[in-house]
Amino acid sequence: MENHSSLTLADIAKAAHVSVSTVSRVLNQREGSIPISQATVERVREAARRLGYSPNPFAAALRTQRTGVLGAILRDLGDPFLSVLVRALQRAAHQEGFDLLVGHAASDPSTAERHLAFLLNPWFDGLFLLGNLPGDAPLLQMLTQRPRPCVAVACGTQMALPAVAIDEEAGTQLALDYLYQLGHRRIAFLGNLEHAGVRERLVCFQRFVQERNLEWQEYYAQHCHSSRSDAAAHVRHFLALSEPPTALFCASDLLALGAMSGAWQVGRTVPEDLSILGFDDIEEAAEGFPSLTTFRQPVEMMADHATRLIHRLIEGGLPKEDACRVTVQPELILRQSCAAPRV
Amino acid sequence: MENHSSLTLADIAKAAHVSVSTVSRVLNQREGSIPISQATVERVREAARRLGYSPNPFAAALRTQRTGVLGAILRDLGDPFLSVLVRALQRAAHQEGFDLLVGHAASDPSTAERHLAFLLNPWFDGLFLLGNLPGDAPLLQMLTQRPRPCVAVACGTQMALPAVAIDEEAGTQLALDYLYQLGHRRIAFLGNLEHAGVRERLVCFQRFVQERNLEWQEYYAQHCHSSRSDAAAHVRHFLALSEPPTALFCASDLLALGAMSGAWQVGRTVPEDLSILGFDDIEEAAEGFPSLTTFRQPVEMMADHATRLIHRLIEGGLPKEDACRVTVQPELILRQSCAAPRV
Repeated sequence: MENHSSLTLADIAKAAHVSVSTVSRVLNQREGSIPISQATVERVREAARRLGYSPNPFAAALRTQRTGVLGAILRDLGDPFLSVLVRALQRAAHQEGFDLLVGHAASDPSTAERHLAFLLNPWFDGLFLLGNLPGDAPLLQMLTQRPRPCVAVACGTQMALPAVAIDEEAGTQLALDYLYQLGHRRIAFLGNLEHAGVRERLVCFQRFVQERNLEWQEYYAQHCHSSRSDAAAHVRHFLALSEPPTALFCASDLLALGAMSGAWQVGRTVPEDLSILGFDDIEEAAEGFPSLTTFRQPVEMMADHATRLIHRLIEGGLPKEDACRVTVQPELILRQSCAAPRV
Repeated sequence: MENHSSLTLADIAKAAHVSVSTVSRVLNQREGSIPISQATVERVREAARRLGYSPNPFAAALRTQRTGVLGAILRDLGDPFLSVLVRALQRAAHQEGFDLLVGHAASDPSTAERHLAFLLNPWFDGLFLLGNLPGDAPLLQMLTQRPRPCVAVACGTQMALPAVAIDEEAGTQLALDYLYQLGHRRIAFLGNLEHAGVRERLVCFQRFVQERNLEWQEYYAQHCHSSRSDAAAHVRHFLALSEPPTALFCASDLLALGAMSGAWQVGRTVPEDLSILGFDDIEEAAEGFPSLTTFRQPVEMMADHATRLIHRLIEGGLPKEDACRVTVQPELILRQSCAAPRV
């Protein structure tokens, strides 16, 4: 192997016929504010590759106290909403000049802690917590002991951190109003109650049931793991009741799609036998048969807010103690999975 | 903030009533070979948390030349098979004493290059390439210039790297034999041909068509982006042909599920009007209506092979030039989405 350690930005600048500062801006991905043509970017990258340039982030980090890399801890890669969120965050982070690396917590508290211990190191400029993390109390304790720029995204509205969250209450209220107006009086709830945001939705749901004096049974509200097959099993159980619910509010599209399968499996049709309402608006929601009526979380907007927020925290623009919160509104997307109940 | 920099492992050992070496093994996650009870592990972690211990991976890395962290570049987080693969790899990596951080390439070559540039740094002990990466030639060039322990997983069987892959040819052959035996003679192919593994399947498919002298039309083989809605659109197009295919081989379950929606959207039923065969066996495959006949990629086994392989590469157990290849066999999972064609 040739040793490239003596290669300088000037060598690359010469090879690419551009200035050293242009090389620096391209290779350090800080081209945001001053436009560089895509052709120039490609030429610099190609020259850097050809010459075997290897960026030295330790050196860069010593100079700037930054590496340009953000870390994220993701509750569960199997959750399609969170995977959409990561993709949106990566796009937004790139736009602000950052890279993003993700640790998948596998819904396991000790895994989340290990990721956090690693991501708290100074070579990550900041970090995101994505989705309600399992056992988040020790994580918050670690963050208190070693404060770093950190933004919680889609973790409910009660996190003691700068956060971007959906308005859980408004969304739930809108969902229930809609089902009520369709004529439903026996409405069930399915959600993973390990997640703070889902618990917020349940509280709102229970208040609605009381206020509207709905035909309520305790077992209409069920905790369900974030799994299609668990949701399907719950729905088969609901539909076998002597007084089955006529509508089901699911705290995620994943559960709603599983619920739909559960209804089909026992020969019932959606929405005729059971209206199903989801939450998230993942890609699949539009493609189901029937397509899923659901709440859209404005993921791109959440990602933009979260990235701007962390950028400001990294630059010291906000006092760390401040609880900076952005709450975004979900939007009801009417499709085919909800209808009036059979009379 | 209190400064914890003077905290030593001995302080934690004292607080947790264990030996310093036990603390070291727990906190460095190297407890693999010598069993430590879960209760002890918890006690050490709790003491470390309480005292505000922050591991110093720079110092550890200087000592051991290892950080215990692996990087992975993932083609696309939106691909449910790859998300299952990451989860399996993380489990396997933990068992071998490693953490795993993932960069999502967003099917974009320059994003993949940026991730690779970062992951090639010495604080990652090794790295995985997951799924056929977009524009992988520059990535391979970077890896040649800066060789690091690297294993390609699910990138087809032709990668010039140590690799764990499915036997693409055997899987495709098995799939087509099955559809042929059911009586299908007009068989279509849908796959994302940007991926080398899928191209291998197409070559095998085309050979089968020739050998069996099937009723072939050029447009029975279609390139399709990895998107449900694109797959649905292709199927609507197939079904509008004057001689529509009676069976469809999809190169992923994601496409197969989208294809199923496409058939429903135009009022056709699966498998009566169109048999659909998938590839991967993601969770959703079993939950569809009808459930999806598909090939299971033995993900857990692939993850175990890949992790053992990278561990050996990190320890220098294999010459880096060796093309170490593990090929695993897919398994046909018979469910409801394939049947004999209507006569």
